[in-house]
Amino acid sequence: MAQKPSIPKGTRDFSPEEMAKRNYIFDTIKSVYKLHGFSQIETPSMENLSTLMGKYGEEGDKLLFKILNSGDFLKSVNDEQLLGRNCVKLTNSLCEKGLRYDLTVPFARFVVQHRNEIQFPFKRFQIQPVWRADRPQKGRYREFYQCDADVIGTDSLLNEVDFVQIIDEVFKKFGINITIKLNNRKILSGIAEIIGEPEKIIDITVAIDKIDKIGIENVNAELIEKGISEEAVKQLQPILTLSGDNNEKVEVLSKLLASSEIGMKGIEELKFVIENADLIGVESTVEFDVSLARGLNYYTGTIIEVKANDVEIGSITGGGRYDNLTGVFGLDGVSGVGISFGADRIFDVLNQLDLYPDNAKNGTSILFVNFGDKEAMASLKHIKTLRANGISCELYPEQSKMKKQMGYANNNHIPYVAIIGENELNNNTITVKCMETGVQEEINVEQLVEKLK
Amino acid sequence: MAQKPSIPKGTRDFSPEEMAKRNYIFDTIKSVYKLHGFSQIETPSMENLSTLMGKYGEEGDKLLFKILNSGDFLKSVNDEQLLGRNCVKLTNSLCEKGLRYDLTVPFARFVVQHRNEIQFPFKRFQIQPVWRADRPQKGRYREFYQCDADVIGTDSLLNEVDFVQIIDEVFKKFGINITIKLNNRKILSGIAEIIGEPEKIIDITVAIDKIDKIGIENVNAELIEKGISEEAVKQLQPILTLSGDNNEKVEVLSKLLASSEIGMKGIEELKFVIENADLIGVESTVEFDVSLARGLNYYTGTIIEVKANDVEIGSITGGGRYDNLTGVFGLDGVSGVGISFGADRIFDVLNQLDLYPDNAKNGTSILFVNFGDKEAMASLKHIKTLRANGISCELYPEQSKMKKQMGYANNNHIPYVAIIGENELNNNTITVKCMETGVQEEINVEQLVEKLK
Repeated sequence: MAQKPSIPKGTRDFSPEEMAKRNYIFDTIKSVYKLHGFSQIETPSMENLSTLMGKYGEEGDKLLFKILNSGDFLKSVNDEQLLGRNCVKLTNSLCEKGLRYDLTVPFARFVVQHRNEIQFPFKRFQIQPVWRADRPQKGRYREFYQCDADVIGTDSLLNEVDFVQIIDEVFKKFGINITIKLNNRKILSGIAEIIGEPEKIIDITVAIDKIDKIGIENVNAELIEKGISEEAVKQLQPILTLSGDNNEKVEVLSKLLASSEIGMKGIEELKFVIENADLIGVESTVEFDVSLARGLNYYTGTIIEVKANDVEIGSITGGGRYDNLTGVFGLDGVSGVGISFGADRIFDVLNQLDLYPDNAKNGTSILFVNFGDKEAMASLKHIKTLRANGISCELYPEQSKMKKQMGYANNNHIPYVAIIGENELNNNTITVKCMETGVQEEINVEQLVEKLK
Repeated sequence: MAQKPSIPKGTRDFSPEEMAKRNYIFDTIKSVYKLHGFSQIETPSMENLSTLMGKYGEEGDKLLFKILNSGDFLKSVNDEQLLGRNCVKLTNSLCEKGLRYDLTVPFARFVVQHRNEIQFPFKRFQIQPVWRADRPQKGRYREFYQCDADVIGTDSLLNEVDFVQIIDEVFKKFGINITIKLNNRKILSGIAEIIGEPEKIIDITVAIDKIDKIGIENVNAELIEKGISEEAVKQLQPILTLSGDNNEKVEVLSKLLASSEIGMKGIEELKFVIENADLIGVESTVEFDVSLARGLNYYTGTIIEVKANDVEIGSITGGGRYDNLTGVFGLDGVSGVGISFGADRIFDVLNQLDLYPDNAKNGTSILFVNFGDKEAMASLKHIKTLRANGISCELYPEQSKMKKQMGYANNNHIPYVAIIGENELNNNTITVKCMETGVQEEINVEQLVEKLK
């Protein structure tokens, strides 16, 4: 036999069981997005490389999957260039297109390209795969789905409140206990300003983020190493050791940041979101976390991250506000805020906590055993009635041994088997066997519909 | 401003309205597949080129999108090979992966790779995009969805009957009148055998297929030109001019093919499918069409093609039986039968006939106008109640001018607008305006739920 075929590393096949679970995740997120008035869009899997390159940093450019031009892909390369073997430069000549790396840049491109057809504020969601030529490892794939929602063309903080609500509702539906961590980029800017190190904001937030992992002593040492003055590090201490509930933290920071206009603006925004989320009945824990600094180069206001309370795993959802999503494509002044659910991690969390509802594993409800042509045709008529009532059912296609047919039901987790033999043909009935209990009963098709509905 | 961004030719963005329509199509097909006991799988967008190459003919190999290897993609190419500029050969060194070209080959690969986990007969459906580097033209795209279902590991013709039923049910749901055309490869083999030209079966069926377009005279001339004897062409005449209903056609062919074992087997199979589809209550026209020869190199038994009766457009669904799907990956003896719905053409047909149901255009049911913080918070509480009842609704995020907010509702086709001012705050009511009629009424939230449910 030929070598067993395989798939590229970092990619996955999804079995029926996995697909049912994944659909449960996507459908749940989608239903909440829709309840909140978001509309779905899709963009092509491939974008022009000019759209993608330079948007994810130098490292990101390397991680883009590029598509070889069709036909004579060497036509614009001369011999000298070829022999130069500069792969980065040659890529630009050999490839015009690449696979999308995330949903955000294609969305920005979409908004600019279709700006005359779009009604602002524009609330869109998008659930599609993305591709990254990352080194594959446990839990990191080269093809994975993102589930993004964004509102653009509005500065209102009510949008942030809406997203906190969406997160709360989605995870309530999943039955996953979460903590919604909030921060605000303006607070981080205020901190850098107050301690007189506005240029060092990235170093400072990276350090704050490490406290849990390496401890305060090491963080302080690292800050000094990065060239931050001892005085500034001293000033940072109340922030690094910030504790208590949201009100207490806000109180401490309000004092520290009193003289920073941008810092106080950040605190005001944070308070608005936390207070209104509470007023509107968000039940998940909402926690102000000043160490939250994800996507710092990108977010300009609210920063959101979600952790599962009962499973050790990274962030399962994240997002924030950005001021100039579309500027890179020449359309300035479009502010937006958005979130992204991490479907693969949510899949793992639901598996670990065994939280999938039974109907997320749904398949065929009842298998009709095949005893021959006459019985099969009688079965098909009953099957038609069942399907008209929305019940998934099937006839075993061959007149195989009973054992084989029952094995099919068993292996496919089909809960009931219907048997139509001579008796049942004469009585116009169906003998129904429950696969779990083994109990059999002879009923008519209306009763069967009632039973399975 | 920078140049307006664009997308690669042959690809598409889908707007919220288009997405709603597309989801209606996919969801309808999916629901019928599930009612018939099919399980969904997904395979990666990229496959190893060794899996894809050679499966679609030389032309197909050219139409595969190939992905440039990451890093130093020239490392296995020497200078001489580079300067040779043989693009076809070089592709094998530069690229290991390609985008899937259809869902059939990845499915065959899936079956062989996972054969120890699969329960046969295996009934799977798969709805995913495929990519082809075809010359883009009207109605032909470089990225498009296929909606396939296949049953493998069973020879039973009941599977064919099941697919005819599935097709009938799907298009009944869409409200599209169709003709399901059936043929059988064994009948075509029988014809070639009887006229003594078994080697010319492809030429003969290509010719038969052209009768409608070029007429019988030209077809005869073409057959002679292809080297088929005058005697054979003469024998072919009753077939080329076959007419009448299915029974009449079958009768004529039964006489002609009486001495061909394979031909008679084909007729027997065809009759089984047509008769049982009728018995089981298939309402669409089922027509035996001996000129149907699609995928000839591939199908070995039943051939299925669906035409829309009221729109001039090519086949909107097709399929058939194949005897050795997985042989190319080293697993012999796996017979199967499958169909594929053409989502893009169905999209066009539904548009042309204006058959989309209202709920296929669904979005937000009601927009709450924003008059300020106090009113907004009251609105959000009502909105929470509405959403708990499954009603999509949203608050306009900014306290903009009434005209702008109403314009938003209008442009997004939101049927109702809710207004909460001082009066409504005091009365704990909501003034609801119907955007179509302009009629307003002041009701409470329970009444609003009833109204919109």
